[in-house]
Amino acid sequence: MTTLTDPSVVTVTSRPLAPGSAVLHDAFWAPRIETVRRRTLPAQRDQFDRVGHLRALAGTPAPGDAAPHVFWDSDVAKWIEAASYSLAAHPDPELEARVDEVVAVLAAAQRPDGYLNTYYTTVDPAGRFTDLRDAHELYCAGHLIEAGVAHHAATGRTTLLDVVRRYADLVERTFGTGPGQLRGYDGHEEIELALVKLARATGEERYLRLAAYFVDERGREPYFFDEEARRRGTPGWFAEHFAGVEHPGRTREYLQAHVPVRDQHEAVGHAVRAMYLYSAMTDLAAGTGDASLLRACRRLWDHLATTRTYVTGGIGSSAANEGFTRDFDLPSETAYAETCAAIGLVMWAQRMLTVDRDRRYGDALERTLYNAVLSGLSADGEEFFYDNPLASRGGIGRHRWFEVACCPPNIARLLTSLPSYAFAHGEDELVVHLPLGAEVTIPVTGGTATVRVETDGPWGGRTSLRVLDTPGGRLTLSLRVPGWARGLRMRVAGHDTDPGRLLGDDGYVSVTRDWAVGDELVLEHEPEVRRVWADPRVTTEAQHVALTCGPFVYAAEEVDNGPSLVDLRIPRRAAVERVDVPGLPEVTGLRLGGERVEHPGDGLYRTEPPRRVPAEVVLVPYYAWANRGAGEMRVWLGDAEEAFPG
Amino acid sequence: MTTLTDPSVVTVTSRPLAPGSAVLHDAFWAPRIETVRRRTLPAQRDQFDRVGHLRALAGTPAPGDAAPHVFWDSDVAKWIEAASYSLAAHPDPELEARVDEVVAVLAAAQRPDGYLNTYYTTVDPAGRFTDLRDAHELYCAGHLIEAGVAHHAATGRTTLLDVVRRYADLVERTFGTGPGQLRGYDGHEEIELALVKLARATGEERYLRLAAYFVDERGREPYFFDEEARRRGTPGWFAEHFAGVEHPGRTREYLQAHVPVRDQHEAVGHAVRAMYLYSAMTDLAAGTGDASLLRACRRLWDHLATTRTYVTGGIGSSAANEGFTRDFDLPSETAYAETCAAIGLVMWAQRMLTVDRDRRYGDALERTLYNAVLSGLSADGEEFFYDNPLASRGGIGRHRWFEVACCPPNIARLLTSLPSYAFAHGEDELVVHLPLGAEVTIPVTGGTATVRVETDGPWGGRTSLRVLDTPGGRLTLSLRVPGWARGLRMRVAGHDTDPGRLLGDDGYVSVTRDWAVGDELVLEHEPEVRRVWADPRVTTEAQHVALTCGPFVYAAEEVDNGPSLVDLRIPRRAAVERVDVPGLPEVTGLRLGGERVEHPGDGLYRTEPPRRVPAEVVLVPYYAWANRGAGEMRVWLGDAEEAFPG
Repeated sequence: MTTLTDPSVVTVTSRPLAPGSAVLHDAFWAPRIETVRRRTLPAQRDQFDRVGHLRALAGTPAPGDAAPHVFWDSDVAKWIEAASYSLAAHPDPELEARVDEVVAVLAAAQRPDGYLNTYYTTVDPAGRFTDLRDAHELYCAGHLIEAGVAHHAATGRTTLLDVVRRYADLVERTFGTGPGQLRGYDGHEEIELALVKLARATGEERYLRLAAYFVDERGREPYFFDEEARRRGTPGWFAEHFAGVEHPGRTREYLQAHVPVRDQHEAVGHAVRAMYLYSAMTDLAAGTGDASLLRACRRLWDHLATTRTYVTGGIGSSAANEGFTRDFDLPSETAYAETCAAIGLVMWAQRMLTVDRDRRYGDALERTLYNAVLSGLSADGEEFFYDNPLASRGGIGRHRWFEVACCPPNIARLLTSLPSYAFAHGEDELVVHLPLGAEVTIPVTGGTATVRVETDGPWGGRTSLRVLDTPGGRLTLSLRVPGWARGLRMRVAGHDTDPGRLLGDDGYVSVTRDWAVGDELVLEHEPEVRRVWADPRVTTEAQHVALTCGPFVYAAEEVDNGPSLVDLRIPRRAAVERVDVPGLPEVTGLRLGGERVEHPGDGLYRTEPPRRVPAEVVLVPYYAWANRGAGEMRVWLGDAEEAFPG
Repeated sequence: MTTLTDPSVVTVTSRPLAPGSAVLHDAFWAPRIETVRRRTLPAQRDQFDRVGHLRALAGTPAPGDAAPHVFWDSDVAKWIEAASYSLAAHPDPELEARVDEVVAVLAAAQRPDGYLNTYYTTVDPAGRFTDLRDAHELYCAGHLIEAGVAHHAATGRTTLLDVVRRYADLVERTFGTGPGQLRGYDGHEEIELALVKLARATGEERYLRLAAYFVDERGREPYFFDEEARRRGTPGWFAEHFAGVEHPGRTREYLQAHVPVRDQHEAVGHAVRAMYLYSAMTDLAAGTGDASLLRACRRLWDHLATTRTYVTGGIGSSAANEGFTRDFDLPSETAYAETCAAIGLVMWAQRMLTVDRDRRYGDALERTLYNAVLSGLSADGEEFFYDNPLASRGGIGRHRWFEVACCPPNIARLLTSLPSYAFAHGEDELVVHLPLGAEVTIPVTGGTATVRVETDGPWGGRTSLRVLDTPGGRLTLSLRVPGWARGLRMRVAGHDTDPGRLLGDDGYVSVTRDWAVGDELVLEHEPEVRRVWADPRVTTEAQHVALTCGPFVYAAEEVDNGPSLVDLRIPRRAAVERVDVPGLPEVTGLRLGGERVEHPGDGLYRTEPPRRVPAEVVLVPYYAWANRGAGEMRVWLGDAEEAFPG
């Protein structure tokens, strides 16, 4: 890749598909996203009424309402964003009315100077912009800005975009290096990537400069949050809300503010914060051509991907800091692997693909989406995981809501905007990072082109891209070939073609030609079940193996295998067949002739050896676990290693 | 056992051997205890001069001295106790002079009313007896009392005993349920068992009553430490010294004060505290005939032994509370397993054996001593482990001293009084709980009897008890047969005898006869290497096996096996031979034809399966680890499980 061999140049080769530019018919995703529209979004909206978000925002709290939380505005904003993407793809007057209602409450709550924050307006009016480290003020602002941009893109209306522009303008006036300005940045990154979106939506480059200011300021000396604390004279929101606990938010690494961002080499601290920062850094590299930011992002990606990512794509192994610990510290049972962090990784991968087309990012996006993200949502669309462990001794289930409810609307907005993660467009080029069944329309020279993508589902191996409409002229169709795909076959416009010839070092097949309407690019590969072993430095998974099929990582559940899953053994040579799984109609399960260890004798330590007996093992895709009760679950299973044959 | 079938009766069947009643010639222990006398005790005494304990006690601190710690007096007291036991067994004028010097400093520091505590006298004179929960005041008093009793028993002099009696009398006046008395007890148990010793040494039953008061008061409502905190109006020593941390000392379980002691069913909280409490409860059961205390002790023992004890005998798996967590939570690498807690378990087992002769206690005492305790001391006698993990990734070594230095003098006092743990005397009976080479003299009807115990060492299987001297009449020789012993053979006064006939349900062989001088009881068994597996609920050791030989648990060290010990596999059928180990002249190592797992491929997750190749595995006794550098170590090794043969 040129970008890898010439690290001083940032080349933007594609842009994510705009909202509303794809019509999904994917057998796996379309029903799921329809569930988000019909069940998830209304249920989340109802939570605001139950808890009191909008009444607080309107200044009319009801008796029994919870005290406003500093995060609340971000919940509302992400819901609007999710609903807006849904509206762009699927008209829904009832949903649109509910969005308009919330937008109206926001607009009415905005102060004359543009300020908009439930907590500081109603609970602590004098505290505005005095606790950037802990109080999520600009984080909430960022989500409002993302909502405003999405709402405008979906509806064409500026009712919310105008509100968030006024707020962004206040932020621009307030923060910076100029006289009288506050030289700070937020403890929870988010506004940076939001301002990049706002700059693109409005064409106003000053928002891009403001985003760059926030990113560049981070981690500089003198340390802003020390100065802020001195000025404020109180220990900050975390200290007040976690009295007696050494909250990790007091560390600089937690906030990715330990050194300037270009000097950061390792993914550290709170995982969601890290992902949002790295996403913004990549956006800024693409938006400003700043190769030093892109170099930092590549380093950070390499570190994260090779040392701190679960096999599910989950990241951030510790609940203590909701984030990273040390290399290869990836315990299964205590895995935090927050849904929002996985979403953040998908967001970052999407951005890396705009400048570094490389299937490493696409593979990670796909793996994370189909496992660590999707596990966050129940089959019925109304319950959520906040953390996503890779093993459970039982008793773990999804919840309808959380006091800190970042994950539910975050997964909703990711799914309703899924085509923008699956598809991108370059110069007269459609890029398919993730094959979803959809009709995709992209801008090309002379108009637009529409391509119908067909797949036989995430468990299959066939993808076709058929041109439905084109103004004529050269068009490039590019399709990621997953790193796990084997036995590639390819047809281009009816002719068998050597896929090796068209497969770039970047892991994408690209065919540029004068495609005619009806012409088809077909790629097939053999979907196979694979065993995966962890780097031996992941000591918690020594002697364990995981099974994958296509993008899916598999897990054993108690409901299929009985209790004590720790005793299951997967023989190396056991044949694996695909099976239907009772209670999970949509999934392809796996079944194999395995073994189960029995433990004769008694006592804490015993001299009778454990013995292995035959046992059928049934596995389900990890994302689908805990939809049939809250029994045991394990991704990593005992590896019946081959003994040395002598 | 009658005591088990009639739980309403407490029968004291034996007493630990008194200091100075055994002359050790044991090939394993005598050199080690001589090292304690010649190196450990002088080195510890020098630490007091380096740190400033005695100068603080004398009220003449030097510039650069550390600020007195609330624990300091216990360090000094345990050193006196250890030195006293040593003097009882082995005259040493230089050591005796150093003891006298320290005793004189203590005596001079005592206040006119009997009070004696460095911290409260020099740092916080107004705070005396206001922070019983955190400040270890009566804990220090208890150790002083133990020192006074030991010093008197060793030297016959009362210079220290008189001091501690005056202090005990002050404690007796201060604490209790009478008018004007403080109805409290100490957060760290210790004074209770010390007062039992003082009662025995002085014949004053009121000290026993005071011990019973402290034990009975524990865990009662209203909760004393809440009332104490209210009266004091400050958060306590822990809160001040661990600012911002939720110190577990604030929980009632940490102090074993969550319910009255007779209602306690599970070993909880700080492990050393728990052991000292249970020891005192057993002492009181024996001393007062209170069967309700003994029943509680039996329950607590069963719970601890079957759910919360490491295979080394170490207890207390968590560093956070220096104590217990939950059943079967026994991780190796993060094992705390404090040396003092293991010593406390040995102390408790010694006491249980006085009332419940059962080899379960003797086996536990032996296992803990040879593994979890002995690992606490370096081969050269001058370095110590505070915590004793069962696995190390490298970089862990013993230290010469600690800021909280409880373990070094504790292991010294245990080893210099080892005969009192190995031997006990009943009514015309010598009981050998632990076969050590020694000449043991016990009181019997008509005078004393002396028995020479010979063994072929802890790796051997032969023990002989030969009567050297007896006033005539019936004498019983009792010897514990370890639970792991196989192939018993026995000779009594020259005649082969069926050991099964003489082996009681309690696991002891007992022979009562008119022993003549020169008569010998010989017990032999086959020492064998055994594989041990953990209860499957110890999930961290699933697929692992440990090797034992005699009382020893074995460990692999990097120095013998190379790095990445996690990759070793122990085939089930591999023959194990005994070998010498370079650099550890005294130990019997084990060698076997094992396997090592190699990890081809790269990446965090990989599709190339690990493969096993032959590899010689050398194991050393756990206690001896980290004497040849600070490399990796593991007790639990990969179990090359037998596959189902089909």
